[in-house]
Amino acid sequence: MQHWLRFEQAGRAGFGRLEGTTILVHTGDMFTGASPIGETLDLAAVTLLTPTVPGKMIALWNNFHALAAKLDAAIPAEPLYFFKSSNSFLAHGGTIRKPAFYDGKVVYEAELGVVIGRRCKAVTETEADACIFGYTCVNDITAAEVLNRDPAFAQWSRAKSYDSFGVFGPVIATGLDPATLTVRLLLNGQERQNYPVADMIFSPRRLVSLLSQDMTLEPGDVICCGTSVGVGSMKPGSSVEVTIEGIGSLVNRFE
Amino acid sequence: MQHWLRFEQAGRAGFGRLEGTTILVHTGDMFTGASPIGETLDLAAVTLLTPTVPGKMIALWNNFHALAAKLDAAIPAEPLYFFKSSNSFLAHGGTIRKPAFYDGKVVYEAELGVVIGRRCKAVTETEADACIFGYTCVNDITAAEVLNRDPAFAQWSRAKSYDSFGVFGPVIATGLDPATLTVRLLLNGQERQNYPVADMIFSPRRLVSLLSQDMTLEPGDVICCGTSVGVGSMKPGSSVEVTIEGIGSLVNRFE
Repeated sequence: MQHWLRFEQAGRAGFGRLEGTTILVHTGDMFTGASPIGETLDLAAVTLLTPTVPGKMIALWNNFHALAAKLDAAIPAEPLYFFKSSNSFLAHGGTIRKPAFYDGKVVYEAELGVVIGRRCKAVTETEADACIFGYTCVNDITAAEVLNRDPAFAQWSRAKSYDSFGVFGPVIATGLDPATLTVRLLLNGQERQNYPVADMIFSPRRLVSLLSQDMTLEPGDVICCGTSVGVGSMKPGSSVEVTIEGIGSLVNRFE
Repeated sequence: MQHWLRFEQAGRAGFGRLEGTTILVHTGDMFTGASPIGETLDLAAVTLLTPTVPGKMIALWNNFHALAAKLDAAIPAEPLYFFKSSNSFLAHGGTIRKPAFYDGKVVYEAELGVVIGRRCKAVTETEADACIFGYTCVNDITAAEVLNRDPAFAQWSRAKSYDSFGVFGPVIATGLDPATLTVRLLLNGQERQNYPVADMIFSPRRLVSLLSQDMTLEPGDVICCGTSVGVGSMKPGSSVEVTIEGIGSLVNRFE
């Protein structure tokens, strides 16, 4: 298992592999071939960036049996998704802020993120395995009261794409079996979500296969697998943490 | 008025300003400062690329009074939009193809595209003018039968983001007053859409101002202003053309 990250230090952006709290700085391309340059940095001495700069972030709705049962929603026949736009991306340590005009509830959603490592189109589930680079933590933030305030048009894209609403990181973990993972969310240190990835309706490899029927997936693209039970809103001043053992903890402040 | 484009020729990508059928090749950045390098190319000798590589493409629903009246839709209180993902982008001359699994109707929508030229956040309508670089033609393609086939979740993002479904170009025209423009669509040479931009519910400058309250807009981002009456489907083998006088003609084949 390896953990990859991107960082900024003294005005330069770079990437590397994390061993304990030491970053082994690399050159090349994280997905197609990276080599260590022999330099190490202390994790505490850098600012983390999002571990990839996705050309697209695809986010699933209604992808867990437990949440579907709770909401009395039908099991979908196909993945249902929207896109989170690039302005929304926020790294570990960044501050989540609601837009100035909005005073309603802001909701966290802890999710598993699948990071694509190889360009693919219309691949089978078996082929999908080789297209997945690794996994990251996602906090899919939503301005809940925007979502359904127009009766004619559900505003999924908008309610979830304000600046700082697409939180992911801190690293990409490779070599994991996602079916063994548990996704947890802590709000001010209190556990609010704790659900198994195994309860997913469309598994990561199935998602990659099905989404690749729709669109070409590119290295660095992120698929947010949807959330399960325990979603709730945050008060300004809160600390919110998505933790997946084997990947890491994505910690952010909400103001 | 100037017309800017991106091209590929002999394996190299470049950009320039179009004068008649001559490209004045430029260097630098199209939005922040470009200089001619003294080289010219014949338009017929290059392959056109999309005139920008948008970090995001925002697409409006229900933004024309005439179409709202025809559909008996309420005038929206705020811009209603979704995102077209990067894999969907297609240039003038490219072939629009439906995904392999889909045999339903594929629909054209001629639209005006606003191209952002300056990073902006929460700008007024007056400030918005300086953030608009220019205008382009958009053909917002939709797999119509995907849109509402799940009763619980309207699939706007998906139905409009298949590879090749985000068509725009051929150029970006600067120095235009959009309120004077007419958007036309020709299917196999027959006019199917012909509507005035002045009928827009949220004008381009108002869209830039309102969308910038939601998200940081970046140079190269494209806002597709929505379509009006005359939308219809295409048979394989069709030629589809979006024409806006003062900008140009965006011509593509549908297979």
